[in-house]
Amino acid sequence: MYVIMVYDLQADRTHKALKIGRRYLTHVQNSVLEGEISEGDLQELRGEIEELLKPGESTIIYELSSDSLLNRTVYGEDPTEDQRFL
Amino acid sequence: MYVIMVYDLQADRTHKALKIGRRYLTHVQNSVLEGEISEGDLQELRGEIEELLKPGESTIIYELSSDSLLNRTVYGEDPTEDQRFL
Repeated sequence: MYVIMVYDLQADRTHKALKIGRRYLTHVQNSVLEGEISEGDLQELRGEIEELLKPGESTIIYELSSDSLLNRTVYGEDPTEDQRFL
Repeated sequence: MYVIMVYDLQADRTHKALKIGRRYLTHVQNSVLEGEISEGDLQELRGEIEELLKPGESTIIYELSSDSLLNRTVYGEDPTEDQRFL
């Protein structure tokens, strides 16, 4: 399936969510990752994120069937095109 | 169709994207909105966002067919359940 993950952590802890997410998905914007993922990897990702979060922090994981994303448009600068987040 | 919008603007300008997005969608996390939207409203939303963005800022709009969102899980605190973002 295809997953979009958006995290909202305290500023000095966002790198932790990014580090976990990057092992499974592609970083596409400041706090957004997406990509194809297997059911097994998704379970692992969920577990790691649940363990990471502290009070006041949250992460949303959207699951889509692989062919259901009709369109994805980036307005402004596409962070995946430069090195800012690498 | 169903739309997920994630914005990444300079900290002192995020409220502008939120204000635009809220006229069409529901605010679900710090920089994320989602909801059903008509094709006409989506065109308006796109136009307003394109006009808003400055260099270094970006917004991603994901379009899904209305029945293709398989699952949506919030880990941690669900910002829509409190008043922080209202």
